[in-house]
Amino acid sequence: MATQKLLLLPGDGIGVEVMAEVKRLIAFLNKTGLASFETEEDLVGGAAYDAHGKAISEDAMKLADQADAVMFGAVGGPKWADVPYEARPEAGLLRLRKDLGLFANLRPAVCYPALAEASSLKRELVEGLDIMIVRELTGGVYFGEPKEIVTLENGEKRAVDTQVYTTHEIERIARVAFDLAKVRRGLVHSSEKHNVMKSGVLWKQVVTEVHKAEYPQVKLEHILADNCGMQLVRTPKQFDVIVCDNLFGDMLSDVAAMLTGSLGMLPSAALGAEDAKTGKRKAMYEPVHGSAPDIAGKGLANPIATLASFGMALRYSFGLSEAADRLDAAISAVLSEGLRTKDIASAGQNAVSTSEMGAAVIKAM
Amino acid sequence: MATQKLLLLPGDGIGVEVMAEVKRLIAFLNKTGLASFETEEDLVGGAAYDAHGKAISEDAMKLADQADAVMFGAVGGPKWADVPYEARPEAGLLRLRKDLGLFANLRPAVCYPALAEASSLKRELVEGLDIMIVRELTGGVYFGEPKEIVTLENGEKRAVDTQVYTTHEIERIARVAFDLAKVRRGLVHSSEKHNVMKSGVLWKQVVTEVHKAEYPQVKLEHILADNCGMQLVRTPKQFDVIVCDNLFGDMLSDVAAMLTGSLGMLPSAALGAEDAKTGKRKAMYEPVHGSAPDIAGKGLANPIATLASFGMALRYSFGLSEAADRLDAAISAVLSEGLRTKDIASAGQNAVSTSEMGAAVIKAM
Ligand SMILES: CC(C)[C@H](C(=O)O)[C@@H](O)C(=O)O
Ligand SMILES: CC(C)[C@H](C(=O)O)[C@@H](O)C(=O)O
Repeated sequence: MATQKLLLLPGDGIGVEVMAEVKRLIAFLNKTGLASFETEEDLVGGAAYDAHGKAISEDAMKLADQADAVMFGAVGGPKWADVPYEARPEAGLLRLRKDLGLFANLRPAVCYPALAEASSLKRELVEGLDIMIVRELTGGVYFGEPKEIVTLENGEKRAVDTQVYTTHEIERIARVAFDLAKVRRGLVHSSEKHNVMKSGVLWKQVVTEVHKAEYPQVKLEHILADNCGMQLVRTPKQFDVIVCDNLFGDMLSDVAAMLTGSLGMLPSAALGAEDAKTGKRKAMYEPVHGSAPDIAGKGLANPIATLASFGMALRYSFGLSEAADRLDAAISAVLSEGLRTKDIASAGQNAVSTSEMGAAVIKAM
Repeated sequence: MATQKLLLLPGDGIGVEVMAEVKRLIAFLNKTGLASFETEEDLVGGAAYDAHGKAISEDAMKLADQADAVMFGAVGGPKWADVPYEARPEAGLLRLRKDLGLFANLRPAVCYPALAEASSLKRELVEGLDIMIVRELTGGVYFGEPKEIVTLENGEKRAVDTQVYTTHEIERIARVAFDLAKVRRGLVHSSEKHNVMKSGVLWKQVVTEVHKAEYPQVKLEHILADNCGMQLVRTPKQFDVIVCDNLFGDMLSDVAAMLTGSLGMLPSAALGAEDAKTGKRKAMYEPVHGSAPDIAGKGLANPIATLASFGMALRYSFGLSEAADRLDAAISAVLSEGLRTKDIASAGQNAVSTSEMGAAVIKAM
């Protein structure tokens, strides 16, 4: 089995704790011969800022570029509230996304049957929920220029952010969404604000054209982003794949994740384009939850989102679908046994710690 | 009693039907001497486009400018999907907001106790919910320039929208939010994405300064917009007033409205600055729901959102708080009697028509 290179970037807060469980899982996979990983580890976010004054070092960027995949924990926390904008923890994450060209962010929102009760929504609305949000991740208002604050003559300040999308950027993310829909339930909702934004007008046009030319077998619906937010709360099960820009994807995927009652359980993948020669794509895997400074360091975090993100890496980056299947089955098994970290425990239920949950998943494999 | 000037702009779809009930209410108020309104009526949206090729005529803009308040129905529908961008139905609404300087959009999300069951959320999470979203309405990505689609040399297109905010724009909307919080529960959440957007950085800074200098008695929390969307679904009752920019306000207010189970019930107000001389402010009142082309013309629409918007007009623009109180009481009364339009009827319950609901409210006054 060829050795595969993985870069671990635990980051801040609970990122460190949940990544520790991935390390244990990797050691297990290497020992049992299920895989052969060579890992490196580096700093990102506030931890990197504390060490080098930057949210990610050039060395770490180089390691990320050379790795077959990156596992990312989480970044940020009140400790870094006042660092300069360019060095804020999130800058490390955004640079990784942009410089590695990870334009396609897959964010599944799945309601685990055992956890349907944890949703704020009525059970019948979320039981069996399985949505895939496909978020454009390297464009839009996140990266467009100008992006600045200038001081005007009268002493006031004026802040500008710029939303930019090109035909090419929209085409490639649309294809990711349609390809996923083909192997799912065959339905794509494309979400924008074409009634207000020119980028929305172009988005709708290009998605419509890609659909017509390349994916007649998939059903395409257009939905305004505000209405999409509403409909996610009203009848979430109407959705299969939702494709949208960077900022709408940020908002909609958080709302969708919250519906499931399984926020501590949800993985995500950020994928680049296929290399024409090698057929490989750059990729970074990350839990949907953040660094949760309020519970950091207490062993309360749920490692499942990060373990499941690693499962996506096994499947999409390493072609180890057997190991991925075993991991998914192990996660289901521990949940069925009733094991719960605090975030998914019901009132009065005994909760296990981060490392107890991690150990149980490995044991179930 | 001085005569007061009201411009009615029913617009498209169910806008026409719900505005008809406001007209009946106005006739009733005039006849009983509770008020003395002089109304004009004009076209907006698709209806205006069909008549003049523009989403609002210069004449209608002039009437809006001269009126003491504008009542707006709803605009848009599939019929106008292919009209030129500048003439699309929404352009009429956006021009009214911008040219009348209606920078402060108040969007209450209130869960009527009788309707808590209609929410997708569990009853205990929404019962008693009373949130006020204060949305900036004349700035941000809705109006910033450049806003364009250009064709590049390689034949691709590139779309740009520009998010702009100045100190002044943020200060004045922050004051509206803090003033409201003072007479409510004393809590403001300011929502932005300062971790990604420079406009978010300035927003957070300016809101913090206004708070410190002018509203020490109000509690201020900062919350990232994606997290705010999440928290609205998780534990909505933690919020009192939420203040945010135009685009986040669009998304968050739709999510918040949907939580209440009362979408067909929710009013909104868009207010301008106080005139230094007269102390008056320009104002437009509008239901939160849209033109609902799917149910238009069938007498199914719920007129309460528009009647309640008119109630806000009575209160904020016309100083007729007695009439406003009576209207609010009448709406509560018909709901308590069990009267329901289709949108809020429970399964199997008999629903009344738009005009039956309107008539019942007037009768209860
Ligand atoms: C941390 C932050 C920069 C990031 C984003 O806005 O993209 C996060 O919210 C996410 O959704 O991954
Ligand atoms: C109709 C549309 C232009 C409008 C908006 O985006 O502001 C609507 O969604 C609203 O929230 O009032």
